[in-house]
Amino acid sequence: MAALRLITFADAAGSRAGLLLEGERVLDLAAAMPPARDMISVIEAGPGAMAAIRALAANPPAGAILPLGSVALQAPIPRPRRNVFCVGRNYMDHVAEGDRTRGITQSEVPKFPQFFTKAPDCVIAPGALVPPHTDVTKWLDYEVELVAVIGTAGADIPKEKALDHVFGWTIGNDVTGRDLQRRHGQWFKGKSLDRSCPMGPWIVPAADLDASDLAIGLTINGEQRQGSRTSKMIFDVKEIIHQLSAGFTLLPGDVIMTGTPEGVGYAMQPPQTLKPGDVMALTIEGIGTLTNTIGA
Amino acid sequence: MAALRLITFADAAGSRAGLLLEGERVLDLAAAMPPARDMISVIEAGPGAMAAIRALAANPPAGAILPLGSVALQAPIPRPRRNVFCVGRNYMDHVAEGDRTRGITQSEVPKFPQFFTKAPDCVIAPGALVPPHTDVTKWLDYEVELVAVIGTAGADIPKEKALDHVFGWTIGNDVTGRDLQRRHGQWFKGKSLDRSCPMGPWIVPAADLDASDLAIGLTINGEQRQGSRTSKMIFDVKEIIHQLSAGFTLLPGDVIMTGTPEGVGYAMQPPQTLKPGDVMALTIEGIGTLTNTIGA
Repeated sequence: MAALRLITFADAAGSRAGLLLEGERVLDLAAAMPPARDMISVIEAGPGAMAAIRALAANPPAGAILPLGSVALQAPIPRPRRNVFCVGRNYMDHVAEGDRTRGITQSEVPKFPQFFTKAPDCVIAPGALVPPHTDVTKWLDYEVELVAVIGTAGADIPKEKALDHVFGWTIGNDVTGRDLQRRHGQWFKGKSLDRSCPMGPWIVPAADLDASDLAIGLTINGEQRQGSRTSKMIFDVKEIIHQLSAGFTLLPGDVIMTGTPEGVGYAMQPPQTLKPGDVMALTIEGIGTLTNTIGA
Repeated sequence: MAALRLITFADAAGSRAGLLLEGERVLDLAAAMPPARDMISVIEAGPGAMAAIRALAANPPAGAILPLGSVALQAPIPRPRRNVFCVGRNYMDHVAEGDRTRGITQSEVPKFPQFFTKAPDCVIAPGALVPPHTDVTKWLDYEVELVAVIGTAGADIPKEKALDHVFGWTIGNDVTGRDLQRRHGQWFKGKSLDRSCPMGPWIVPAADLDASDLAIGLTINGEQRQGSRTSKMIFDVKEIIHQLSAGFTLLPGDVIMTGTPEGVGYAMQPPQTLKPGDVMALTIEGIGTLTNTIGA
C-alpha cells in the first residue's frame, strides 16, 4: 500500500486535517472522522485514530472528498504549540564547509548535538513566500532538513525506544540570516526571522517510511545545491530524541528539524545569498518536495 | 497609589487571572470582569481593560474577593504560547566571571545580545519544586533575571518605542544545567530541563514601575549570592526589544528574560551547585520576591 500523506488544508470553511489521495483529491478528515479537526488532534488521538484513517484511505467516503485545487495546502502543523526544535552541525560535510568559512581546515566531529529553536509562528506553508528580510540580513540562506514529528510524550527516552515516539516525517527549510546567526553567538536570532520556516508538504507516518537512509537534497532555481543521505547524520534521529529528552519532556506535535547536509549558500565559492524570486525546492526520498520562493 | 500586582491563581474552580490586594486578599478578575479569564486575555484586552482593572482595584467588589490562603499562586503566565526568550551574558561582571571559569582574564564587552530560549512548559509557579535533575546534570545553577512581558505586537520596533510594547515586569529564575549548556554549544539543552523556569510571583504593570535601575538579587538558603542593579545591563530592555524584534514579530504575552548579574554558582570559588532542599529567593526592587526550592 502507498504511504499515507497527511496534510493540513484550508478553504472557506477554515483549516483542518486531511489526507492527500491519488488523483489530486483530498479527504477531509474533519468531515470523515470528526474528532480529527486538526493535525495535533490526529496525533493526540493515537494509534486507534491512525487505524481509522488507514481504513478511510482504503475506502474514502465520497461525501468527504474535495478536489486538491479547491483548497490551500498549509504546513502540516501550521503553528506548533512551542518553538520548533533544531539540531545544528549534524552532517560532517556541512560541519567542514562551515569551518572552512572561518579558516578551519581540520574539522572535529561534534561530540554532542547542538540544539536551538525557531519560533512556532515562523512556520509557513508549502508555496508561501519567504520575505528577503533585506533590512535585517545581508546573507539569507537555505537548509533542507528531515523533520521528525513527535507522536507520544516522553522524557529520558532510551535510544532503542526513540522511534516509537515519532509520529511521522516531513520536510523543513531552516531559512537563516547567516550574519545574524554569527554575530549574536547563540543562533535563535538568525534562525527566527518572520516566515523563515517553510514546512511540508505533508507528513508521512513513521510506520510507512524508514527515514534512516533517504536521499535529501535542495535546488535553487533548478540548480542542485544540496544532495546527501539522511544516513550521514552525525547524530541520528534516535540519538537526537534520546539526548533532547534527557530531563526534558517531549510532547505530541513537537517538531524536530534534524540538521542540514553540505551545500549551503554561505559556504559556496563565492558565497551565495538568497535573492527575491529564488525558488527553493527541497526533496526527501519517500516524502516529496517542498517548494517556496523568496518574495520581493 | 500602590503598584498593581497581577496574578494567576487556581482553586477548585480552575486557573484564572486576579489582582493581589492588601490584607492577603485576591480579587478574582474572571468573576469581577468576565473577559479577563486568564492573564493573556487581560494583556490582549489592552489599555481599556487595564483601566477597568485599576478602577476595580480602587473599589473591589466584595463578591469577587477571595482570601489568598484559599488559592494557589501560579506563574503569572502559567504556560506562555511559545518559548520564553532569554538574553545571555548581559551584565559585564557576569560575563567576566564566566570568562574566568575558562581561563580568560580580559573580557570583551559583547557587541550583540545573545538570544536563546527555554520551552514554555518549563515555567513553574512561585513555591513549586525544581527537580535536582541529578541523572542529567552534575551542575545545576540559578540565575535571577528581570522579565519583560510583552503587551502589544510589533516587529522592527525602534528603541525609543520599545517600552510602549511592555505590558509589565516580573521575576524569572533561569535554572541551568551548566555542564549541558557548555557541552552542547548552543544553550537550549542546558536551559530547558523540565520545571527549570520559576516565574512570578506577579506582574507589576509597566506604567507602575520604571525598571531601568532596580536592585536585583538572589539568596541561597538566606546567603546572598547575587546582588546588582538592572541599570548594569549591557543591553537595556529597549535595546533587547529593538534587536529581538528586527525582522521578527513579538506577540502579546511573550516573555523575555533579560539576563543575570554576577554571582552564579559555577563561577564561585570553589564552584557551587544547587542541592536538594536549597531555597532560592530572588528579589527585584519594586516587584517582590520569587522563592522556589530544589526538590529531593
